[in-house]
Amino acid sequence: MAEPNFLRPMTAPDAEKGKAAQFGPDSALALDAGRSLAPWSIAYMTYGTLNAAHSNAVLVCHALTGDQFVASAHPVTGKPGWWEMMVGPGKPIDTDRFFVICANVIGGCMGSTGPAETNPATGQPYGLSFPLVTIRDMVRAQAMLLDRLGIERLLCVTGGSMGGMQVLQWASSYPDRVVSAMPIACAARHSAQNIAFHEVGRQAIMADPDWKGGAYQLAGVQPSKGLAVARMAAHITYLSEAALQRKFGRNLQNRNGVSFAFAPDFQVESYLHHQGMTFVDRFDANSYLYITRAMDYFDLAADHGGSLAEAFRTTTTRFCLISFTSDWLFPTAENKRIAHALNAAAATVSFVEIETDRGHDAFLLDEPQMFGTVRGFLNSVASREGIA
Amino acid sequence: MAEPNFLRPMTAPDAEKGKAAQFGPDSALALDAGRSLAPWSIAYMTYGTLNAAHSNAVLVCHALTGDQFVASAHPVTGKPGWWEMMVGPGKPIDTDRFFVICANVIGGCMGSTGPAETNPATGQPYGLSFPLVTIRDMVRAQAMLLDRLGIERLLCVTGGSMGGMQVLQWASSYPDRVVSAMPIACAARHSAQNIAFHEVGRQAIMADPDWKGGAYQLAGVQPSKGLAVARMAAHITYLSEAALQRKFGRNLQNRNGVSFAFAPDFQVESYLHHQGMTFVDRFDANSYLYITRAMDYFDLAADHGGSLAEAFRTTTTRFCLISFTSDWLFPTAENKRIAHALNAAAATVSFVEIETDRGHDAFLLDEPQMFGTVRGFLNSVASREGIA
Repeated sequence: MAEPNFLRPMTAPDAEKGKAAQFGPDSALALDAGRSLAPWSIAYMTYGTLNAAHSNAVLVCHALTGDQFVASAHPVTGKPGWWEMMVGPGKPIDTDRFFVICANVIGGCMGSTGPAETNPATGQPYGLSFPLVTIRDMVRAQAMLLDRLGIERLLCVTGGSMGGMQVLQWASSYPDRVVSAMPIACAARHSAQNIAFHEVGRQAIMADPDWKGGAYQLAGVQPSKGLAVARMAAHITYLSEAALQRKFGRNLQNRNGVSFAFAPDFQVESYLHHQGMTFVDRFDANSYLYITRAMDYFDLAADHGGSLAEAFRTTTTRFCLISFTSDWLFPTAENKRIAHALNAAAATVSFVEIETDRGHDAFLLDEPQMFGTVRGFLNSVASREGIA
Repeated sequence: MAEPNFLRPMTAPDAEKGKAAQFGPDSALALDAGRSLAPWSIAYMTYGTLNAAHSNAVLVCHALTGDQFVASAHPVTGKPGWWEMMVGPGKPIDTDRFFVICANVIGGCMGSTGPAETNPATGQPYGLSFPLVTIRDMVRAQAMLLDRLGIERLLCVTGGSMGGMQVLQWASSYPDRVVSAMPIACAARHSAQNIAFHEVGRQAIMADPDWKGGAYQLAGVQPSKGLAVARMAAHITYLSEAALQRKFGRNLQNRNGVSFAFAPDFQVESYLHHQGMTFVDRFDANSYLYITRAMDYFDLAADHGGSLAEAFRTTTTRFCLISFTSDWLFPTAENKRIAHALNAAAATVSFVEIETDRGHDAFLLDEPQMFGTVRGFLNSVASREGIA
């Protein structure tokens, strides 16, 4: 696909962050908070080729700490894309056949406008002056990006965790633009327990004196310790008790016996430390606050008079829901609620619960049953749409 | 019971902390870390009257953040004892009939020797120079207290969570001194997930600049923010997802709509903040480090060549295990492991799993089936022992 000429390539050092679509004062992004954002930009990556009919586009939505690098190396860490097992040539989301788009969410820190970006009105980083965003705002921004790309309808929208929330929001906000939707390991509302875990993470960040009320960039510091603690707490929720026991159990880290000290004796402690330390190198602390808050606020039924079915009342989208047995962050029960609501809306829906002990993170891992489900569903939808 | 005269009443402002037994250089406490503690003291409370045969003593062991005030008001908070529904005149652990002892654990901060106490060798608070303690050390200290009190055998040892770990350790270390044992909502080893949550809490404390490498007392500060975050994270694990949903759901705190800000919008957030704030007023941050570490290190099977049954090989103790269906911190599966090991050791054991949605904290709450089980078991044991 030739790049539309209104998309400027990002300049160095942003070049690695991929493409970004710029929106000026005439294209303000209206936010649920009652404010609007202008100018603003949305960074994204594409894989594969858009066909002549513009009918083979698949939008992938990323999770809390994900980004647009779904199928190519991360420019900061150099690690493979976060869903390379899922997206690529010959993969379940086959880029030989489909045009895949993945955009960094609004409020994020990989090139889309967020709290770490410069506020053009002040010339300083937004910090906490950045407006709170919602899942619906993220989706609204993506819709404006798709308008720019000349894509009216999406063959499929998919994503896991917060990505799944965006999938549900897409299907609800833009029923005519979504041929099929595949939300994975998600929920139609954030639970009390999940809000609680998010608040612990936020408090850990805000308790760090280097957070400086959100203005740490101006001070040339970052609340690394607080952000690492937030990541460590969250990471536990991404795994299952069984997986932690299987992977680490009570194994000691390079020791024959416990140290009788507070250094990490156990492998599981070293693992968590590693998760915390590597995270702070690639993620902005304020973005973490904003995006967790967006998830907390997500409650699709509440936006429709308390009826989740009402959120999908006129839908013609075909749905495929996927959950994992050991996911205690977004348990199968939450996915069943979505399935029931879709049934009540007379939608076309299939639901697959995958047996695994890997917890929530299973959606990012090598789960053959998930790959088979995604491949089969997409093939079926593509055939119905007459895509070669 | 007349107080033995070698027990000095604690002087003001410690008077409210109850009684304390002092041990001098000739009565050092040998620790698993290979060090010993002398002088040292153990603070405790008693309820009821020791009978002439000294055969009606029940030892209650407290949990991570508990203390000796099991059935009387806490001197700092003024709140009722933490198990007043369980212990008292006419209660399941009936102080009209039994002599109940509860001691603050070694490493604690309610009068027993711990990191916040003054090191007599230096005249300064121990801080991190305090040796690491284990569950076995806690129990060894309690055994020395019982020696002082002239109690050779315990009619029963009971407690929940870390208290239950002490119960198991008591039965294993001192099989001849324990007539019956009632561990509640516990495990014979700390799981990888539980170690991980503890490490998050410790990192939150150590990340607080007011922790000052553990020497905050000298600086006249305390790492309140870090300790509050640690408590908040831990508190989530004490409840169940269902209980949080039932109690709080997505209810807003004194608001009609979300604030689009980072103040606590949701009731569950306000609740967690309250838990964090009240905790720092009554608990020492270093004690929190030491006691969580003691729990992490607990692995009764590992101390017996990997065989939990071996830990109870010669036991004549009668066991009653209690777990709760929604406890994900110390799930029923862990309690079944204990039951299997006791069966393999040909011990007398009954096991009760109580249906509740309240999670781990159920052991502290109004759970009629738990009360009935405790009352029935204690009555039966007391009858066998010929106690009126």
